[in-house]
Amino acid sequence: MSSSPSLDALIEALQCLPGIGQKSAQRMALYLIERDQAGARQLANSTLHALEKVSHCHRCRNFADADVCQICAEDKRNKSLLCIVESPADVLAIEASGAYEGLYFVLLGRLSPLDGLGPDQLGLEVLESRLADGSINEVILATSATVEGDITAQFIADIARKHQLGTSRLARGIPIGGELEYVDSGTLSRAVSGRQQYDS
Amino acid sequence: MSSSPSLDALIEALQCLPGIGQKSAQRMALYLIERDQAGARQLANSTLHALEKVSHCHRCRNFADADVCQICAEDKRNKSLLCIVESPADVLAIEASGAYEGLYFVLLGRLSPLDGLGPDQLGLEVLESRLADGSINEVILATSATVEGDITAQFIADIARKHQLGTSRLARGIPIGGELEYVDSGTLSRAVSGRQQYDS
Repeated sequence: MSSSPSLDALIEALQCLPGIGQKSAQRMALYLIERDQAGARQLANSTLHALEKVSHCHRCRNFADADVCQICAEDKRNKSLLCIVESPADVLAIEASGAYEGLYFVLLGRLSPLDGLGPDQLGLEVLESRLADGSINEVILATSATVEGDITAQFIADIARKHQLGTSRLARGIPIGGELEYVDSGTLSRAVSGRQQYDS
Repeated sequence: MSSSPSLDALIEALQCLPGIGQKSAQRMALYLIERDQAGARQLANSTLHALEKVSHCHRCRNFADADVCQICAEDKRNKSLLCIVESPADVLAIEASGAYEGLYFVLLGRLSPLDGLGPDQLGLEVLESRLADGSINEVILATSATVEGDITAQFIADIARKHQLGTSRLARGIPIGGELEYVDSGTLSRAVSGRQQYDS
């Protein structure tokens, strides 16, 4: 038994975090109470504030605090490029790379009839009306490199083609720093078949 | 940049947790918002509740919701045994072992003049008045097996001796499941010098 029921409740609640079990939760709870009460208060308030504020952007389905998210609302974005991703985490990853200046559309999933995810769940009607309005020139298919991701990309490419839009797919091959010896054979086979002209 | 400032604030706030960096905080924040809003609300409320409720027990200095903690207040504890530990985490560890039924006294540190931790900071006056009241028969010194832990144990043993109380120290030796080959030499030397009569 423990000495304080509210500490026990905090340890229990921390275990809702992904990858956090009993031991880590205990360490976190003691740390918050012993050494960082200000941080703990901040964490609690940020959580409540995010729960209250965060909804989905009406244009791209990403998380947003208002009707339209910060990325869609930003002026200096290239509004003729639309990158289709599966999740908000993918947007964060591409933004962190700093390699993309266009807009996004977040599917919040991928086509997976077994899980009940069809075109309706992925907001493909919203996407189609957006492709139809003429502002987009190129659709970048950034769904994941899995069978379902490929099928989703194919499905969206068909929609884009209906509207005479160019489509592209993220390049696949050997990751930066990857040693051939340790690259899996599927990736290697793809890297060989997709080899590119070498301009020295 | 991200699409939602309140999500950014949550990612930032989660990084106050020990061992959680940018990537893990991002994963946790997205998980809470996408998949476990009830858990997130519970976490925020438990944190605020603990911050408001948890203080230190007047008798043992462990965390408590009231003046006296749950362990000190429990009737079926053996009130003649007092185990001296350095931190509330140590109490949780000993309680989890299920091997102890007595009471605790939590130093909230160990003697360390360099860090400004002397007898006053460790509540040794409170401890001494408790040892003087005659209810304790044995003092178990469960400070950590370090130089500072040993010095602290020695210091408290001297106080206990003044009051004619028996003292004991946690046994040291090879951990359960430990293979001799991988046990460090300090532990091994201690295990040899502290070897015990073998009763088969």
